[in-house]
Amino acid sequence: MLDVLNDEYYMRLALDLAAKAAGQTEINPVVGCVVVKGGRIVGLGAHLRRGEGHAEVHALAMAGGEAEGSTVYVTLEPCSHHGKTPPCCDRIIAAKAARVVVAATDPNPKVAGRGITRLREHGIEVDVGLLEAESTLMNEKFNAFITTGMPFVTLKTASTLDGRVASRTGHSQWVTGPVAREQVHLLRHQHQGIMVGIGTVVADDPLLTTRTAVTGLHPARIVVDSRLTLPLDARVVADKTARTIVLAAEGCDEEKRRLLEAEGVEVIPCGTGPLVDLRIGMRKLAERDIGSILLEGGGKLNGAMLEAELIHKIILYMAPKLIGGDEAPQSFRFQGREHMSDAIELERMSVEMAGSDIVIKGYPVYKR
Amino acid sequence: MLDVLNDEYYMRLALDLAAKAAGQTEINPVVGCVVVKGGRIVGLGAHLRRGEGHAEVHALAMAGGEAEGSTVYVTLEPCSHHGKTPPCCDRIIAAKAARVVVAATDPNPKVAGRGITRLREHGIEVDVGLLEAESTLMNEKFNAFITTGMPFVTLKTASTLDGRVASRTGHSQWVTGPVAREQVHLLRHQHQGIMVGIGTVVADDPLLTTRTAVTGLHPARIVVDSRLTLPLDARVVADKTARTIVLAAEGCDEEKRRLLEAEGVEVIPCGTGPLVDLRIGMRKLAERDIGSILLEGGGKLNGAMLEAELIHKIILYMAPKLIGGDEAPQSFRFQGREHMSDAIELERMSVEMAGSDIVIKGYPVYKR
Repeated sequence: MLDVLNDEYYMRLALDLAAKAAGQTEINPVVGCVVVKGGRIVGLGAHLRRGEGHAEVHALAMAGGEAEGSTVYVTLEPCSHHGKTPPCCDRIIAAKAARVVVAATDPNPKVAGRGITRLREHGIEVDVGLLEAESTLMNEKFNAFITTGMPFVTLKTASTLDGRVASRTGHSQWVTGPVAREQVHLLRHQHQGIMVGIGTVVADDPLLTTRTAVTGLHPARIVVDSRLTLPLDARVVADKTARTIVLAAEGCDEEKRRLLEAEGVEVIPCGTGPLVDLRIGMRKLAERDIGSILLEGGGKLNGAMLEAELIHKIILYMAPKLIGGDEAPQSFRFQGREHMSDAIELERMSVEMAGSDIVIKGYPVYKR
Repeated sequence: MLDVLNDEYYMRLALDLAAKAAGQTEINPVVGCVVVKGGRIVGLGAHLRRGEGHAEVHALAMAGGEAEGSTVYVTLEPCSHHGKTPPCCDRIIAAKAARVVVAATDPNPKVAGRGITRLREHGIEVDVGLLEAESTLMNEKFNAFITTGMPFVTLKTASTLDGRVASRTGHSQWVTGPVAREQVHLLRHQHQGIMVGIGTVVADDPLLTTRTAVTGLHPARIVVDSRLTLPLDARVVADKTARTIVLAAEGCDEEKRRLLEAEGVEVIPCGTGPLVDLRIGMRKLAERDIGSILLEGGGKLNGAMLEAELIHKIILYMAPKLIGGDEAPQSFRFQGREHMSDAIELERMSVEMAGSDIVIKGYPVYKR
């Protein structure tokens, strides 16, 4: 379909700018901005790094004097508060823009409509809601974190069609094909943490870094290890490419903790045990500014996180094969519900192909 | 996309005619035919019932004298042999058609190109291969049966995303939604047999009939029951809507066999036991002109049929939910392969939504 030159034409570019920066703004949202005057783009920008310029600031700087009388397209409501940078509203007002088109309002309680009010008070025309769903989806991690104070957790599994992540002998290379595996590395780039259980570390000794065709960002490696049995020679300890955090139960071996800390590993006690209290764990990670986590756990950790209602999104890769084996490990292990009607349902389901594999995405709904 | 008036325009109608008759021709293929002369359709037909007129016969009868000099579009090569009806080639030659367009050749060794040769020998122009893939797919059951002498088996399951067909307490109503369940009844209409294990009969006492918005055809109910423990008051015995066949091992209880036969149930011994030899079972069903079977088994029967390499097509319905429970029954139970690279792969995979459920289809490839 041919593009039509209208507000949507420019807002789509602003959304594209924002989307490509996903993963590099930490707990901040991704935002894109396009400044248009007299039928041409005069400035564009995106928020690229936490603590540095917002999208509007970059775009208005590029526009210079042309910003006067312009239309500013921005994917998220301009901020009205002094954070790490001055409020973007003031910048837009100072630049004398004539009109601002906003995709979505900012759920951050410090903004939440105040930015739009402030612009209008200064005589700027403001339109809100163009391509709002796209902008909201793009910031689903930020939106959850800013409103709940808990990390947005994406559970990812890779299994056969019969739900096995390995054969009965533990053989698992490879379940899915190269396209799916590349997508998973992009997912790592787009999350601040990557979480596994100690069982996975012991069984596979994974590196848990982002390996993409070009350099990507490495999430913090988070290992759930109640009794602190993580071997000192595990690759997540020995390799210093990325930060490593261990969630343990209180009262774990102090000597072992010192040894791990000497290796640069951060140990966080989460509850009185014997198992890690996962909800406390998520809260403590949030306090350390980890706003999004990719859960690549085994069946037990996946099941425990699901039962604790700590998972926001589920991405299931399924390879077109059947492996069998009653003892072959599965993607989910938890006590389970008695009635089919009590199953945990997923909403906003989608399904597509990734090479020869299937990708199913959805959002669990927890009945309260 | 707008239709364009060309050969494909008419062949698509012929394919539509054939497709809607799927399920009502028993071991015969589905075939559609359209006769065109002077820019208008003068005859159309489909093969509607085994032993009765072929598609070409119906269409040429409708065309009457207009058939002379016409083009005949037919989805499958016209037959050249005397079967239950005279050869269609002779009918076309007698009608003095000028040209015949054929989608696919007939894999039946009694035809296999002879029909086309015969038409050409009589000066009729013949084009072969237009929309061949569509015609071949439509007759995948017939093609397998006519070339191998074994029934085409479609395995169908309905599970949660974690592969459970019921909760750990056995609760299973309902896993999938109404759209998926309606599709399954269409699948029953389109197969000659529906097969389950004795475990399913004992657990659920299913009726195994076709329940659609309008009257549909009921496949023969096939129960795999090695030791002939089928209760006489089971609904598949007591209800006479459809034929019931039991596959048992030789040497099963003769008295029980007589009691079942008195109820109109056919008991077929398959191998010396202790378990039913499924390959012998399939062969004996084929001898009884059952050319297609919908397998709606539990995990054990599904696994056994898969390991015996008797399954041709797999249709997995997956509901957007997770139920958990290590003991909750699964779609597949079999010993399984040691290495991921030895898994049974599926080719020609497709995936789509059926209401809020996912449908995954594919064809298992057995490495010899």
